[in-house]
Formats: sequence, structure tokens, C-alpha cells
Amino acid sequence: MHQTFDAALEMNLLHANQTGADHNRAHFDEWGITCLNVMSSPGAGKTVLLEKTLAALQGQLNMAVIEGDMTTELDADRLRQTGVPVIAINTGRSCHLDSQMVAGGIHTLKENHHPESLDLVWVENVGNLVCPAEFEVGEHAKVALLSVTEGEDKPLKYPVMFQEADCLLITKTDLAPYLTVDIERIAANVRQMNPQAAIFPLSAQTGTGLKAWLDWVQAQVKVRSEGASLVGATH
Amino acid sequence: MHQTFDAALEMNLLHANQTGADHNRAHFDEWGITCLNVMSSPGAGKTVLLEKTLAALQGQLNMAVIEGDMTTELDADRLRQTGVPVIAINTGRSCHLDSQMVAGGIHTLKENHHPESLDLVWVENVGNLVCPAEFEVGEHAKVALLSVTEGEDKPLKYPVMFQEADCLLITKTDLAPYLTVDIERIAANVRQMNPQAAIFPLSAQTGTGLKAWLDWVQAQVKVRSEGASLVGATH
Repeated sequence: MHQTFDAALEMNLLHANQTGADHNRAHFDEWGITCLNVMSSPGAGKTVLLEKTLAALQGQLNMAVIEGDMTTELDADRLRQTGVPVIAINTGRSCHLDSQMVAGGIHTLKENHHPESLDLVWVENVGNLVCPAEFEVGEHAKVALLSVTEGEDKPLKYPVMFQEADCLLITKTDLAPYLTVDIERIAANVRQMNPQAAIFPLSAQTGTGLKAWLDWVQAQVKVRSEGASLVGATH
Repeated sequence: MHQTFDAALEMNLLHANQTGADHNRAHFDEWGITCLNVMSSPGAGKTVLLEKTLAALQGQLNMAVIEGDMTTELDADRLRQTGVPVIAINTGRSCHLDSQMVAGGIHTLKENHHPESLDLVWVENVGNLVCPAEFEVGEHAKVALLSVTEGEDKPLKYPVMFQEADCLLITKTDLAPYLTVDIERIAANVRQMNPQAAIFPLSAQTGTGLKAWLDWVQAQVKVRSEGASLVGATH
């Protein structure tokens, strides 16, 4: 539930959310954790991607997941099968996670999961290509998914998500042969909105293209842990 | 742009939207128009469905479209190819059409398109499986689409849309052979949320299943025009 407001109220709400996001990020930084916020339409493949990614990176990285859904723990339960700790947040009628909800998740992390031992916390947002892009939750980078079945025009029609994303995954490429879709056209439309984003086409189901994505994730963690050592060295 | 509020503000906003929706519906009723509000995730196939539906029903029904998108007139231009009048509304950062935006569309209808000659006005909402379900725009029935590529669990995870829908289209059934998805399971999950909804699996691309949907649309218009004649007869 949400609505369009007058501009002043809108700025106040976004400002309050941003303050909370900065506070969350300060906690992650204190613990040496990288946080990635994963967003997309419903059914673009966020949970399958996380299942495969957690399985691939376990043993190399210590991870946890903050899992947002309007209702049910269906996705949380799927990810728990990997053995990675998962904190489920039900947003009720809210169409996105906000920084206050994620602060609740961080509190649970702190109580139960020794956050200083973690390298990487995933946030899986509510399936929505519009609203989550406007509400930072304390992440270090935003990952957006767009499945090939959604059509080439989506980056142009839903610009905010694509402008905000640091990394854009074009998912379900295994289905491309059965569609009249051009993956290069999708990538070009993303670049038109956001020339800086890293773009990886992949199929989490078959594993095609997954390695480039996993390398990007590990580079994100490495940059941050080296930054932390550097800060340590200057003290 | 939107946010979760305190309950009183939320009720006020929904109440104001509802008053506007009732006002819009009164206009449609006055002109003998049936209005259908079409909603889904981005890329579930709303625009292809409308392209095929407009083409099939032209000659039998006089129609117009109010087309909502955050930005661009890409979909409006596609539908204009059918020759049906299309009024484009750009919602900017808003993640759904509200009754005030649709009132603007109705004003344009009134100025330029002889609304009393129309039988059916389609509203194509912003692609979003969460927010549009809460904002009535003056429609007589809500049509929700869920594509087979989005997964079987979506009715359980995004309950509001499925509870509100009068008609649920399971789209892109031509892709089902390439997926591990059970259309009967999707339908059962929809029924769990909403035992009354009419459910039609179809592929707008191949035409399979389209007839049952077109019959449902015509029945919606017929019920309303007979109701109007009945009202006329009692005067």
C-alpha cells in the first residue's frame, strides 16, 4: 500500500528511509559485510539465482539472506535448504522492503548469527520492478534481474530500476530460443538508461553465464574487505 | 513513488481514491460503457493480449483504451495500430494508475471520442503485481494476468491481486512445454485465494484458449447493456 504524495511529504519519507539505510550500512561496514540488494519483477528468477549462487559460493564466503515477501516463507524455506541462515520479513501490504524492515533483519542477525563472521548479506526484495528501486535499505550495490520473457522494452518503460542498478542480470536465457527476443537489444536498452551497469546474461537453471556473475559478486566482497584492511592499516 | 503510512492516512488516501473511482464509474454507466482494468507484472503479456483482443472484437464492439505507463508511449503506439482510439497516461514515478489519472483519460474521451457510442473501455495498468490491485479506477471488473514463466507460487505470495481479480488469465501457455510448471497447480493456487474468479489459460501469441476469454469479455458487455436497457424500460 502506497500512494503518490505532494512533493514535501515525499521528500520527508525518502529522507527518513535514507537515514535508516545509512545506519544499516554503517552496521554492515562495522562488521566487514558486503550487502547486495536483489530486485526484479515477480518471477524473474531471484530465488533460483540465489539458490544457485549460495550453493556455488558456500565454503568460499560466509553468507546470510534477508528475504522479503508480502506473505508466506516459501522463498525463505527454499533458501534454507542451502544451509545458509535466512531471516524472513513479511511486508504485509507493502510493495517493497524499506530500511526500517531491514533494520529488524539486522537486529536478528546480531542476536543469532555472529555478524562479524559474515562476508556477504543478500537482501531479496519483494517482486516489483518499480517501487523497491526508490527505497535504499543499506546495500552496497543493487542487483536487478530482467528475464528474457519480459520483453526488450522494459528498461525504457521502467527506467528507475535500470538507472539505479549497479548490476543487471538478463535471466532465463535458456528460454530465448522459444521467444522472439533479442538479448543484445535488451542489453542496449539497459545501456541507454545506465551506461555504467555491469550486464550479465545467464540461465540459473542451466548454469550458462553463471561464472561471470559469481566473479562479479566475489569482486564486490574483495573490494570491500581490502578497503577494510586498508582502513585497519592506517590506524 | 509511495510509502507505507500510518493507518489513518492510508484510509484517507484509499477513501479519496475510491470516491474518484465511483465518480468515474458513474460516467461509464451514464454512457453505457463497460470498463475492464487489466493488471499484471511487467511482461506478463497485457499489451499482446489487448492487441489480439481488440483485433478480434473490432466490428462487434466499439472500444477505446486508457493506457498507463510510467513513461513512453510504446504500448499506446502498438495498440493504435489496431485503429482503436488510445489515450496514453504517463504516471511518472507512480507505480499504478489511480482514479484521478483515469478521470483525466475520461475527460479526453469526452472531448474527442463520443463516449456514448462506446461499448467497452480498456484500462491497461502499469506493470506491477502489487500496487494497482489496491487502487480502483472506476472499472466494472478487474482482469489479472499471470504468465506461466512467473511460477506456480505467485498467487500465494502476492495475494491481494489474486483476491481482487474477477478474471485471471494464465498467459504464455505456449511456453509451458519448456518449463517445469503445472498450469493446473497455478489454477489451484488462484482458487485457494479466490474461488469465484473466472480462470482462462491462453496463449495470445498462438491464439490457443483465446475464444473462452473473448466470450467472457462479451458477456461482461452484454450483462451491462441489458442492465442499461432494463433501467431504460422502467423509466
